[in-house]
Amino acid sequence: MRQVAVCGPRECSDVEARWARMVGRLLAEAGVTVLCGGGGGVMAAVADGASGAGGLVIGVRPDTERGAVCAGLSAVLFTGMGEARNAILVASADAVIIIGGSWGTLSELALARHRGGIPVVSLGGWQLLDADGTPLDATISATDPADAVARALGAGS
Amino acid sequence: MRQVAVCGPRECSDVEARWARMVGRLLAEAGVTVLCGGGGGVMAAVADGASGAGGLVIGVRPDTERGAVCAGLSAVLFTGMGEARNAILVASADAVIIIGGSWGTLSELALARHRGGIPVVSLGGWQLLDADGTPLDATISATDPADAVARALGAGS
Amino acid sequence: MRQVAVCGPRECSDVEARWARMVGRLLAEAGVTVLCGGGGGVMAAVADGASGAGGLVIGVRPDTERGAVCAGLSAVLFTGMGEARNAILVASADAVIIIGGSWGTLSELALARHRGGIPVVSLGGWQLLDADGTPLDATISATDPADAVARALGAGS
Amino acid sequence: MRQVAVCGPRECSDVEARWARMVGRLLAEAGVTVLCGGGGGVMAAVADGASGAGGLVIGVRPDTERGAVCAGLSAVLFTGMGEARNAILVASADAVIIIGGSWGTLSELALARHRGGIPVVSLGGWQLLDADGTPLDATISATDPADAVARALGAGS
Repeated sequence: MRQVAVCGPRECSDVEARWARMVGRLLAEAGVTVLCGGGGGVMAAVADGASGAGGLVIGVRPDTERGAVCAGLSAVLFTGMGEARNAILVASADAVIIIGGSWGTLSELALARHRGGIPVVSLGGWQLLDADGTPLDATISATDPADAVARALGAGS
Repeated sequence: MRQVAVCGPRECSDVEARWARMVGRLLAEAGVTVLCGGGGGVMAAVADGASGAGGLVIGVRPDTERGAVCAGLSAVLFTGMGEARNAILVASADAVIIIGGSWGTLSELALARHRGGIPVVSLGGWQLLDADGTPLDATISATDPADAVARALGAGS
Repeated sequence: MRQVAVCGPRECSDVEARWARMVGRLLAEAGVTVLCGGGGGVMAAVADGASGAGGLVIGVRPDTERGAVCAGLSAVLFTGMGEARNAILVASADAVIIIGGSWGTLSELALARHRGGIPVVSLGGWQLLDADGTPLDATISATDPADAVARALGAGS
Repeated sequence: MRQVAVCGPRECSDVEARWARMVGRLLAEAGVTVLCGGGGGVMAAVADGASGAGGLVIGVRPDTERGAVCAGLSAVLFTGMGEARNAILVASADAVIIIGGSWGTLSELALARHRGGIPVVSLGGWQLLDADGTPLDATISATDPADAVARALGAGS
């Protein structure tokens, strides 16, 4: 296990930002590289948490705007490919942690489940029902950042 | 209004295939170009319906496998970009019609809502709740193929 | 043989535009679908020639700007992926015809040769030497539009 | 100046591998992050040189094959987008160094010149002539690895 993508909205609540910062710190302390979208909100918070703990953080941007990049990144890929970059984040990760909900975040959750074979863990965020109204097991639901990281790294209870 | 993307799973129910075929036919009869994923299930059914009515159908494939392409396509783009092709379908459409549910289909719904500014209409498929369990208005829910096409073309009741 | 990509610069000479228009017309008359970048210069000229002869022309755009699209296209894919769209054009074609030279056009030539297995024909355009100064057989050099189309369709003399 | 892409063929000569290893080492010693394709040949050599000097090296792969990755990478992006990944490498770099020649490498040179505004430096590799046979100033030609790095970093003589 070497690379975990942490996905979440550009505009997030204070609780989500706190979760993201802690998830970043715990991943860095576990020696895991963090992949994120390199923007604001959850992306900036996880980069802050991981870099503050000395971890490696790679931002994968949708655009090529140097000014739109959050602090705390070790390196930045400017894809210039819009939301298609979400597919790269998901394809590159050994696990995905979803924090909060937005349309972009939902696309990452969906792409991660489409790929299959990796843990997709969530802290908060949206829920899914199938056509009959039955809840879908879209993600492994975590109770707090430590639980999310443990489950992403395959040591979940 | 010129191009409508019709998205749905590779493995679909008979009802979904019937809906997709009829949606394809109605779009073709309205002089609208159909964009689809060019594979099986809903993709094959919409291509069949639209081409049978003399319409233009463009398939946008995730791979470069010539043998994986469904019948009825006027032209095929082989992106070789995996599920990132979903972003192209959505970015190219003046409206999106979702038929049925799957992880790939959900990513298209999410990317379409992330883009914003275009109708995203659904026939069947999955439902979304926010973190509090409140239903999200993810799509314009249609009652049948004619209603779906009318709403996609901006003439919905 | 069903789809031929015609690649060339946005700003081209009158001769290149004439060549492109004629290539488009001949491809359409042969029942072949034309793929192009959907912009100005060679792209606009080939679309004009092919559509004038009743052919199918698919434009694959780097951006999502509806206003930047040339006339004569049957359908347009808005990739929003910048020059990565060149890879899609090349991957989708059964043959590539290069008209004139530019950096974008050169990337298409290079991607087509990297892919291999398809004819890459040129009318005018740049030449390549290896590190020792020996000319590289980068493309099949055509003498005029009819020759270019014949060689692309595998009927070259 | 923070990120330099080093591009070159998967199958390279011993001289090219030596050049790439030295370029990687010099970039790392200058505190610059190396971006590369993460595969064999020049890609493996530059990763080896940079990582041996304690530098950060990011590999950007065309596929999602974990086994195809070279040693020495700090992080790997698995784009699953084929040669479209070349556009990402070039868009992410503050300068590009080309070592040797191949069709994939040529596409990176062409995409870098298409982008414009950044130094594109070469060590060996192919040459370009325009339609009249006049040499094109495709790249800044360097005499050795130290010269290539100096010119990429804007301190060229």
